[in-house]
Amino acid sequence: MEENQMELLDLSGIRWDAHGLVPAIAQDVETKEVLMLAYMNEESLRRTMKERKACYYSRSRQALWLKGETSGHFQEVVDIKFDCDQDALLLTVRQTGMACHENHFSCFHYDLEKNGFKKVGEPDVKPDVPLGRTLEL
Amino acid sequence: MEENQMELLDLSGIRWDAHGLVPAIAQDVETKEVLMLAYMNEESLRRTMKERKACYYSRSRQALWLKGETSGHFQEVVDIKFDCDQDALLLTVRQTGMACHENHFSCFHYDLEKNGFKKVGEPDVKPDVPLGRTLEL
Repeated sequence: MEENQMELLDLSGIRWDAHGLVPAIAQDVETKEVLMLAYMNEESLRRTMKERKACYYSRSRQALWLKGETSGHFQEVVDIKFDCDQDALLLTVRQTGMACHENHFSCFHYDLEKNGFKKVGEPDVKPDVPLGRTLEL
Repeated sequence: MEENQMELLDLSGIRWDAHGLVPAIAQDVETKEVLMLAYMNEESLRRTMKERKACYYSRSRQALWLKGETSGHFQEVVDIKFDCDQDALLLTVRQTGMACHENHFSCFHYDLEKNGFKKVGEPDVKPDVPLGRTLEL
């Protein structure tokens, strides 16, 4: 899609929540790891589509949040899919470095145990890449 | 964890939203496909942990929603992880049949194009299983 077409793209079919946001899941294209869940407003989604780098809306800072802008850990967007009721989206991304600000590849690195949350896995480690789907079992 | 311990498990560290919900991502353990995004309240999370079948909270019906109860397409829960700010969770599940009520394996099967949402992929098809991570490239 060309740039001017992208800017005119009708996003009104998306079921934004009361705050004008939708949850966006980021999944790494190589490892298939689910990296994080964040939120997008219309402006951040348009910017993501245009620049092909994941740009979220930070609910705490109430501002656009270009992932990697300070850390360098950008997410190159390979694909965007919407779900069947158009109120969530899935970004397939090529993650640079670690997705989590705690230096883990994925933000989902906590177990809930009897004594509370427990961090699991190793920091600064990118999981193994599963072999390609084109190979037959 | 034994059943009585599970019922006493302290869930107050979870950052429930204003409606007492957290978003829950379901990912298939075999194919690594992201299947859906739904929501859980405390009761549905406790039930999920106890029965090891994904049970969500339906915001439209305002009731617990045991995934598969009517369709038979249950999600056996293999693992539960929380993210670094404890406001989202990732279920690793073994999906029976198709996750999407539109008979696709994943609910994320829509592209957004110039003319609106376009369904992609084939119904009633489970994607190929990537080869195991224990094999070296």
